[in-house]
Amino acid sequence: MIAFERPIKFEEVDAANIVFFARFVTYAHEAMEHFFGALEGGYAGLILDRRVGLPAVHVEIAFTAPARYGDVLRIETRVARIGNRSTVLWYRMHHTGGSGDGRLVCELKHTVVTTDLRTLTSCDMPLDVRTLLAQHLEAPGEQEPHRG
Amino acid sequence: MIAFERPIKFEEVDAANIVFFARFVTYAHEAMEHFFGALEGGYAGLILDRRVGLPAVHVEIAFTAPARYGDVLRIETRVARIGNRSTVLWYRMHHTGGSGDGRLVCELKHTVVTTDLRTLTSCDMPLDVRTLLAQHLEAPGEQEPHRG
Amino acid sequence: MIAFERPIKFEEVDAANIVFFARFVTYAHEAMEHFFGALEGGYAGLILDRRVGLPAVHVEIAFTAPARYGDVLRIETRVARIGNRSTVLWYRMHHTGGSGDGRLVCELKHTVVTTDLRTLTSCDMPLDVRTLLAQHLEAPGEQEPHRG
Amino acid sequence: MIAFERPIKFEEVDAANIVFFARFVTYAHEAMEHFFGALEGGYAGLILDRRVGLPAVHVEIAFTAPARYGDVLRIETRVARIGNRSTVLWYRMHHTGGSGDGRLVCELKHTVVTTDLRTLTSCDMPLDVRTLLAQHLEAPGEQEPHRG
Repeated sequence: MIAFERPIKFEEVDAANIVFFARFVTYAHEAMEHFFGALEGGYAGLILDRRVGLPAVHVEIAFTAPARYGDVLRIETRVARIGNRSTVLWYRMHHTGGSGDGRLVCELKHTVVTTDLRTLTSCDMPLDVRTLLAQHLEAPGEQEPHRG
Repeated sequence: MIAFERPIKFEEVDAANIVFFARFVTYAHEAMEHFFGALEGGYAGLILDRRVGLPAVHVEIAFTAPARYGDVLRIETRVARIGNRSTVLWYRMHHTGGSGDGRLVCELKHTVVTTDLRTLTSCDMPLDVRTLLAQHLEAPGEQEPHRG
Repeated sequence: MIAFERPIKFEEVDAANIVFFARFVTYAHEAMEHFFGALEGGYAGLILDRRVGLPAVHVEIAFTAPARYGDVLRIETRVARIGNRSTVLWYRMHHTGGSGDGRLVCELKHTVVTTDLRTLTSCDMPLDVRTLLAQHLEAPGEQEPHRG
Repeated sequence: MIAFERPIKFEEVDAANIVFFARFVTYAHEAMEHFFGALEGGYAGLILDRRVGLPAVHVEIAFTAPARYGDVLRIETRVARIGNRSTVLWYRMHHTGGSGDGRLVCELKHTVVTTDLRTLTSCDMPLDVRTLLAQHLEAPGEQEPHRG
């Protein structure tokens, strides 16, 4: 599991004064960029130099509590499944403080396919990508309970 | 079913040169605002005057084809289920032209709960909201095949 | 002058509950895309097929009134100056209704340079671009007073 | 002067494959939030608890070089002027690496007015805000040349 803290930004709320729901998908991508920061050249190197991308084929989000400006999320990234050319990234976003007291804000499953960006067709998963994913493989339900 | 056409904007693509996946969730919200435009006062009136909102509790997206700058999406909104205080909106986004030839880009299920925005707790579904939803109720699998 | 109406979207406000100031720059770009819609192939054709872009070299914005969710802006695009390879687009954004009663929200000057997108260096201004700009050339100070 | 490094995110580019120009205004706001992080409660505390905001009345941006995905910007925040109820924040954004070799990407002047968010009218500048601004006051033209 790789985690980081992410303060909500001033412009990320909506007219109901809570974080706009699409933002959490953007946070998930931030978490993915962060996760693949462990690769040589990072995610940007994968995209720009190696021309391999990870477009989503499926996303599923369960929202459990709102987040507001002033809150800080703790975003945990795990790997729920590794396939041949696809993988399922699994993010849990918690409140760390502010209005939330450690409560789970949302949980997101993100299925991506290793893709040759020159042709936009699927390609073999690079070995360093597979190795990194395997290091963080953890089936949903197995993680320890969160303690704020 | 309520539909509208939505050109992709210049800034909606990512470094892989396709529409950034989180954008489709924003498009879904645009489609919801468009759908509730049929209410008196529209969606803004619901939020601002009546203080009833429709925060998401669940979102599921299946991506089937990329979209690019220059493409125009046709976004269809249907209602897949109406519950007591919740409903499932169901969006299908197709290419209308450009690079896509009518292909399905993504399908999105969006479960929302009628919520009192003063307290952020669920509330009874307003009658005009329920009536509008009921007019567009259509179970997945029942719609006619799309013909570009 | 080319004008269009633009409703504020649900997610375009910030934690102070007014439209986030950077959004107006995005609206300006929308207005520019709208303006160049009069070209054959539109702005997208210019970018994608002809590989000519209009990156900004200077932007200046004066804000005079806030905008909120539920408001609709009327965005007017004029051309303030046409140079050799550059031009100054000039946008005025007014309230049309909602909370604002026709008040000016902001005025924006946007200097762009015709640019070969393959090399990111300036290039001659295409004739159809120059012709369209010339049709809407209007020096600041000359426009009729706005009457809501 | 307060500085921080800001990697360009995957979704921040546009269809010309460079950072979308409105994004730099968002970066400026990030820099402002970062700058006021030195206040007790930070910028969020100012907005949410003290109900004092800093809406923009004027923004001016000069763009000098493009930025791309994979680049990291160094964003420096200085204070160019302190008035009675207004101040001018002044940001310089440089390349730190990637494609840019320390080149200046853009320079941004951001005039804000201390505002009571309950009434959206100007208010006296809080003392801690003024003190912080004064610590970083530096007239344009006085800063040392940047050395990449």
